[in-house]
Amino acid sequence: MTTEEEEVLRVSVSVLHHHSKLADSCCVRPGEFNQNNTMEDKAQIQEAIKTQGEVVRKLKSEKASKEQIDEEVAKLLELKAKIGGDEVKHQFVLKTAKGTRDYNPKQMAIREKVFNTIISCFKRHGAETIDTPVFELKETLTGKYGEDSKLIYDLKDQGGELLSLRYDLTVPFARYLAMNKITNIKRYHIAKVYRRDNPAMTRGRYREFYQCDFDIAGQYDAMIPDAECLKIVYEILSELDLGDFRIKVNDRRILDGMFAVCGVPDDKFRTICSTVDKLDKLPWEEVKKEMVNEKGLSEEAADQIGEYVSMQGGMDLAERLLQDPKMSQSKQACAGLSDIKLLFSYLQLFQVTDKVVFDLSLARGLDYYTGIIYEAVLTQAGVAPVCTEAQNGAPGEESVSVGSVAGGGRYDGLVGMFDPKGRKVPCVGVSIGIERVFSIMEQKAEASAEKVRTTEVQVMVASAQKNLMEEKLKLVSELWNAGIKAEVMYKKNPKLLSQLQHCEESGIPLVAILGEQELKDGVVKLRVVATRDEVRSRHTHTPRSTSSVLFLTLNYKQTPVHLMETLMNTKTQRRLIACHSSFKDLQGRKSPRGRIKCAQMKSSK
Amino acid sequence: MTTEEEEVLRVSVSVLHHHSKLADSCCVRPGEFNQNNTMEDKAQIQEAIKTQGEVVRKLKSEKASKEQIDEEVAKLLELKAKIGGDEVKHQFVLKTAKGTRDYNPKQMAIREKVFNTIISCFKRHGAETIDTPVFELKETLTGKYGEDSKLIYDLKDQGGELLSLRYDLTVPFARYLAMNKITNIKRYHIAKVYRRDNPAMTRGRYREFYQCDFDIAGQYDAMIPDAECLKIVYEILSELDLGDFRIKVNDRRILDGMFAVCGVPDDKFRTICSTVDKLDKLPWEEVKKEMVNEKGLSEEAADQIGEYVSMQGGMDLAERLLQDPKMSQSKQACAGLSDIKLLFSYLQLFQVTDKVVFDLSLARGLDYYTGIIYEAVLTQAGVAPVCTEAQNGAPGEESVSVGSVAGGGRYDGLVGMFDPKGRKVPCVGVSIGIERVFSIMEQKAEASAEKVRTTEVQVMVASAQKNLMEEKLKLVSELWNAGIKAEVMYKKNPKLLSQLQHCEESGIPLVAILGEQELKDGVVKLRVVATRDEVRSRHTHTPRSTSSVLFLTLNYKQTPVHLMETLMNTKTQRRLIACHSSFKDLQGRKSPRGRIKCAQMKSSK
Repeated sequence: MTTEEEEVLRVSVSVLHHHSKLADSCCVRPGEFNQNNTMEDKAQIQEAIKTQGEVVRKLKSEKASKEQIDEEVAKLLELKAKIGGDEVKHQFVLKTAKGTRDYNPKQMAIREKVFNTIISCFKRHGAETIDTPVFELKETLTGKYGEDSKLIYDLKDQGGELLSLRYDLTVPFARYLAMNKITNIKRYHIAKVYRRDNPAMTRGRYREFYQCDFDIAGQYDAMIPDAECLKIVYEILSELDLGDFRIKVNDRRILDGMFAVCGVPDDKFRTICSTVDKLDKLPWEEVKKEMVNEKGLSEEAADQIGEYVSMQGGMDLAERLLQDPKMSQSKQACAGLSDIKLLFSYLQLFQVTDKVVFDLSLARGLDYYTGIIYEAVLTQAGVAPVCTEAQNGAPGEESVSVGSVAGGGRYDGLVGMFDPKGRKVPCVGVSIGIERVFSIMEQKAEASAEKVRTTEVQVMVASAQKNLMEEKLKLVSELWNAGIKAEVMYKKNPKLLSQLQHCEESGIPLVAILGEQELKDGVVKLRVVATRDEVRSRHTHTPRSTSSVLFLTLNYKQTPVHLMETLMNTKTQRRLIACHSSFKDLQGRKSPRGRIKCAQMKSSK
Repeated sequence: MTTEEEEVLRVSVSVLHHHSKLADSCCVRPGEFNQNNTMEDKAQIQEAIKTQGEVVRKLKSEKASKEQIDEEVAKLLELKAKIGGDEVKHQFVLKTAKGTRDYNPKQMAIREKVFNTIISCFKRHGAETIDTPVFELKETLTGKYGEDSKLIYDLKDQGGELLSLRYDLTVPFARYLAMNKITNIKRYHIAKVYRRDNPAMTRGRYREFYQCDFDIAGQYDAMIPDAECLKIVYEILSELDLGDFRIKVNDRRILDGMFAVCGVPDDKFRTICSTVDKLDKLPWEEVKKEMVNEKGLSEEAADQIGEYVSMQGGMDLAERLLQDPKMSQSKQACAGLSDIKLLFSYLQLFQVTDKVVFDLSLARGLDYYTGIIYEAVLTQAGVAPVCTEAQNGAPGEESVSVGSVAGGGRYDGLVGMFDPKGRKVPCVGVSIGIERVFSIMEQKAEASAEKVRTTEVQVMVASAQKNLMEEKLKLVSELWNAGIKAEVMYKKNPKLLSQLQHCEESGIPLVAILGEQELKDGVVKLRVVATRDEVRSRHTHTPRSTSSVLFLTLNYKQTPVHLMETLMNTKTQRRLIACHSSFKDLQGRKSPRGRIKCAQMKSSK
């Protein structure tokens, strides 16, 4: 359930209400707690309630969006609550904060799968991981994000340090390196970041969202770590199976050199760069209009830029531009172009050039990039969320491009900003746009017939008759001790049907059924939920300290081969059934299709 | 590195400083951004700087703690920065926010191991997982934490909703259930929570810390889910191997019944309960003094309580108390005692009674418990952090007891507080005190000779000669494609020694060494770092699309058996070496100790 779909409930609840002054009231000093409402406060709050009431009425009369009205109503209710005193019945809105969402178990199952794929890749490339606090000193973030600084969440000054929620993982990483005097590291960091944006949540954009960063810090030979970052993007996007993709590559030095040779004044580099950045959403004519009309660039300069930014290619394009009479005048551009050439030579060794494009229109929003920049986009319109971001007006890093699912670049100056002596630690990194990936995976899961399992339970312990709770608890406990994922219903006498239904609903493959007769015979009836096949298996109680526990021994001579195969089909089920002593018996035996393998059961000890 | 150990660096850095008004200034309305410093603001700030300067001087003259002084200096610098204008060189403190810490790769490796143990257990018991945002509407948290509400972190009002950082995972869970009308679920949630406490960080207590919660919601037969929670605590603490432990159990109804029959007035139940809660830190005499002198209880009532709270036992104690002439007068107490009996009968089936104690002195801090409560404590003084918490004066849930590593209980009323019609969803849950577990594991890791690996790299691609960068990149790329964790140095011509040193430092077990001769012969020299044994293995390039890639084929007939065993020793290395075609060859072959097993290599596709 997304925040937008969620039913906003107005709830009347008895809440122990603590007296508190108006939040952020100018009279409260840091560290000072004011315990009593004075008469003046009450008057102030009543005034505020009146004003807020008018705001709500106005919005309603204007037919404003439900979300907007809800938000103002919430504020009104908050004010009303302040004046209510103790134990007051007051109304409140039952929702998550604007721009945030809960993840339900199904979403978490998808999230876990995606994270596993990505983390495996990072680990395959030898990365360590670190974690940093969710908030930083406010000043740590100051001056790092340009215009976007207004989107930073600040914490209330409750006495003590001024704090802000992290805006990305890159600045905390740079702070970490400088603080610990680390000069080289390859690390990944997966964590939530916070931006007071107006996100379009239906397209997987939120105020609280995951970033998934991989960075290589250190003074190394040119383009080797940079090439590895692109290799990683290639591997992850291939493995996630999101459809075809392209990785666009450019270099900040090429952009700056290009602006210089096209006659853009130095002080307009950044702003013209932002305009170029819109090329993936707007046609060139619109972009040119903005350059000329809004940014005051000459038509001639704009046209020259227009020519360059339409260029796409590979190593050949870099070679051609190195010969370009104009471009070759810029030392910066030449340095960038030589590095692009070198990069492509490494990408060839990595066999990933089929998806990488040198694209002069790629600009990227963040200020701190100093060299190579890149961005991966999904090229199948059917999968990628349709983009109307341009209307949003809030160019967070996530919104850079249609179907953008990864991006990054080289930032050689950022760590130096934190170092006492300004010592630089060159860095290059990539951030996977994981929220968009989640959205796509969720859509796919919904479209697919296959059910997403939210638990990993392998066997349900059930009974057909009443009064077997004790026996069931004993059995499930043995299973847990043997490391097997097992469940039992929390009812003393549940119906067999409801136990089987639970298995079907949550995809549990096996049921171990206990009955009076089975208990007498010392066996357990094992039932395959999907096929309804049943088999009786010997059940021996053993002390949990035994390292190889005989739990369920199949009487395999009496078990039909097809059922044997079904039971032994997955590692999970082999683990459940095979065990120390049956292992020896089964070892020599092969089914016609030779698929029976035995594993020694590991106990949980 | 803990925050306390960290070197606080005063840094002079050039920062692009954006004009902003004083934080929380009373004149700024929500949604309004004030872009310019007015003259009045400057005067205000200068005044604040003067005042703050005095605060710092005073603290220094008083020889206040370094941390306290640093904090006030940080505030002073922040103020000075405000007035500096653009591009000002200003001083700032390079540190994490008070009460928070970074996790370095080593700590993360330990954290991952601990989480894996715990999550495996939760999954074994069939739990799903959910996630909720790090902040909630302020009113969602209002009235849930009693006196501790003052420890909640609020976000600054930047226009829009009033928000607070979550204080625990239980209230967001209850909000989630009510909002989504979920009446039964078994879920775990591992995430950070926030408390503006004054934590003792050396003992693993922070303002930002992990909670690790498992809860069962739903209307079920009595004590079955409650018993499973205790079984889970037992399993986790056993598997984490933290030393011996006890799980104390009590019931809120027994406590309330006991207070009633001892003559405690109804309105003093909670406050007397808090005093009882101190029994694990203070001797009875102190506790009694507080009851009588501070809380105004009669000496007689206190003595009666003192008799009861000294009682510990098992099912037998519950039976005895059911016969107790005084206690049996309370219906509530009897209900609680009967449930304790039932609980112990289930715990016997789960074979965990050896660690569980019915302890009438267990009270626990939180208001929302309604039935069974429990707490696990480590009993080996050598492992558990020494406790001086009583001096702290901040009774957060984490500080309840000496060596407390898990706690929880039944809270049947909380979800109903969020439901429009007050419908109750009974819940029982447990929270693992994961930060304390981390601390202990870190101490253990430091004491142990074994090195904690921070990466999982299996093989390093190296060369003895120069100019083999291209060959190395090709080889490492093949390894990545085959799903093998591999690394190469980012230098074109590193020294062999430094490559081998890197392996030793980061625990990489194997090096694949390329040289001119090897390339000519089509082989790779594979070296075991620990033993310096070397073996030449055939190296065949294959297209990455092939599903079973022959990567390195050992010429096993020429390989000494002891080396073969070393190489095949771990799953990791078998995976690296064994492959589709060598599999067949090796299958029949056994080493003298029979340890050679072959695995089919899975490609990354």
